[in-house]
Amino acid sequence: MSDTILADMTALLDDLTKPKGSLGKLEDYALRMAGIQGRVPPRADRRAVFVLAGDHGVTDEGVSLYPRDVTAQMMANFMAGGAAVNVFARACGFDVYAVDAGVATDLPAWPALDPERSAPRASGGSPGFFGLKAMRGSANFAKGPAMTDRQFAACLENGRRLARFASRSGYELVAVGDMGIGNTTSAAALLSALGFCPDDMVDRGTGIDDATLERKRLVIAGALDALGPFPEGPGGGARAGAAFCGPELATAAGLMLGLADARVACVLDGFPITAAAALACRLNPDAAACMFAGHQSRVRGHRPVLDALGLDPILSLDMRLGEGTGAVLGGFVVGLACRVPAQMARFSQLTVSKAPSDEVDY
Amino acid sequence: MSDTILADMTALLDDLTKPKGSLGKLEDYALRMAGIQGRVPPRADRRAVFVLAGDHGVTDEGVSLYPRDVTAQMMANFMAGGAAVNVFARACGFDVYAVDAGVATDLPAWPALDPERSAPRASGGSPGFFGLKAMRGSANFAKGPAMTDRQFAACLENGRRLARFASRSGYELVAVGDMGIGNTTSAAALLSALGFCPDDMVDRGTGIDDATLERKRLVIAGALDALGPFPEGPGGGARAGAAFCGPELATAAGLMLGLADARVACVLDGFPITAAAALACRLNPDAAACMFAGHQSRVRGHRPVLDALGLDPILSLDMRLGEGTGAVLGGFVVGLACRVPAQMARFSQLTVSKAPSDEVDY
Repeated sequence: MSDTILADMTALLDDLTKPKGSLGKLEDYALRMAGIQGRVPPRADRRAVFVLAGDHGVTDEGVSLYPRDVTAQMMANFMAGGAAVNVFARACGFDVYAVDAGVATDLPAWPALDPERSAPRASGGSPGFFGLKAMRGSANFAKGPAMTDRQFAACLENGRRLARFASRSGYELVAVGDMGIGNTTSAAALLSALGFCPDDMVDRGTGIDDATLERKRLVIAGALDALGPFPEGPGGGARAGAAFCGPELATAAGLMLGLADARVACVLDGFPITAAAALACRLNPDAAACMFAGHQSRVRGHRPVLDALGLDPILSLDMRLGEGTGAVLGGFVVGLACRVPAQMARFSQLTVSKAPSDEVDY
Repeated sequence: MSDTILADMTALLDDLTKPKGSLGKLEDYALRMAGIQGRVPPRADRRAVFVLAGDHGVTDEGVSLYPRDVTAQMMANFMAGGAAVNVFARACGFDVYAVDAGVATDLPAWPALDPERSAPRASGGSPGFFGLKAMRGSANFAKGPAMTDRQFAACLENGRRLARFASRSGYELVAVGDMGIGNTTSAAALLSALGFCPDDMVDRGTGIDDATLERKRLVIAGALDALGPFPEGPGGGARAGAAFCGPELATAAGLMLGLADARVACVLDGFPITAAAALACRLNPDAAACMFAGHQSRVRGHRPVLDALGLDPILSLDMRLGEGTGAVLGGFVVGLACRVPAQMARFSQLTVSKAPSDEVDY
């Protein structure tokens, strides 16, 4: 962040009619947003959530209790406006975009948006759809890499196209969510390849029995052996991405990289999207500067990854749904943090007595 | 909560197109709201925040670094729409009511609402004003009780009148906020009289120097000795309330008691309002069933009081502003929790595959 922006934003926050620092983390969020956008005050009134969907070949190993068809069924639910993320987005002021990043089955013929040419959805309108199917689900990484290097690059580029759409459309805050049966397994393997402790990343959930948990562990351990090693640095990151990502996670990483290039803030959802963020940061360490952690989910491996990325979760409500729900609600808080300096009265304009000292309680 | 409501609400939550339990605490909030309102699904779309203002004679002892005039200045800021709570309320869909519960000085002649007769503000409109000045600030409790028993009863009744207004106006969720220079000192003394450890309740803040902190401690310890003892039970609670409450805290306690009688949910703000909640629960232990803790503030004594009331704070953003800001933002989350069961698609209406097991990750 430039020293000027930091100084200007700090001066503005301290001129608001409240005790200095009394809005706590909201003031930090406003400062970070000012740094990302390079303007004082920052804005986050134009908001979108991208729900990236894809399927995972590793579900053939029996690591999830949901059938793979649920990914496509939930896409229909997003488009009909009946999923949790739709309710969250309506309440929190986010436009919804559902993205087929690589669902295994054919989806209904929804009119697809063109990232390069289409206009954004009318605010509060029906969800938009992007058909960016890089593959019909990833390959089973228990048998070989989840995707080819070329497919991985195509997913990253699809994500960057979405970022250009978001930037061109004037979105000031982008929430990133996921839908993909099996993607906590994919995320755990990806994070293990990026250097996190595999035992910390594999989550029991509350419904997976001991046998399924053990199978999940063995599948990941075997694949790490077979497909590794994964050197540090961007090259090893790309190798890990191709080895373990489902298409929605690789596309999410590309979206985050593109948003960072465009200096558009993004808000992460739960464990799978945070795994994509860790991958994006391996490919470009500067990307973390534009990220917020929407929430801390109930998935065990989430917190250590957030810590490694230097991200403090905005909310902690024991959610573990995905779809971008945590990102949208956390993003609402960031939006509010930006409205405070834009809308509050200032000491310099009013006759409210300031405290003689810096930080005090009323 | 009746067994029928609990069963019906649980069945509805489990029929929503998401893994069972995956919305975490939001599902708990929806369940609690259903129990409070006795309906499935519950509603929290009609929301109001009452900002109760009053002055404290104990400021004569030099326990606050802000001059007492700030209370009245901030009332003008609320009415002009420029305070933090106004920004929060606009973003989160709360109507704002500023209440003169006992400000020491004369306020401008704003048109005052009548709790028994006035209509509520148009949603999103300008703030409403209630003139319920029970006194011109409390007396200095270092010299004697902060108010007479009769004044304390009048404040409680004023709060109950506001609750009747809220209920009659159809508000489904009421955030309670405070403005009163010196009220963290009043709250610390009140909570000590209610049995909390005084050393845990007296907060340094970050601007109060050692001498001021020591003075604050001594004032409270001396007053506890002089005005006590405070027996357990409602009688001792009322005695403690008259000894230490500022008018806004006593009025807040009355508001909470009235809301509980009307089965309207309320959301607590920070430390002073939580002290008023502890008082309300001493006067009527059933009142806690209708309360949510909007947030955990940075004030040290806040958490032990929330724990004692059995309230889990919705947010923890290091805020310590008051005015109802934390209550409004936390209340927004409760509102969202109620929208989820009202608006989401259900498995019984759609063809989305349910998991064979109870709680699993996608």
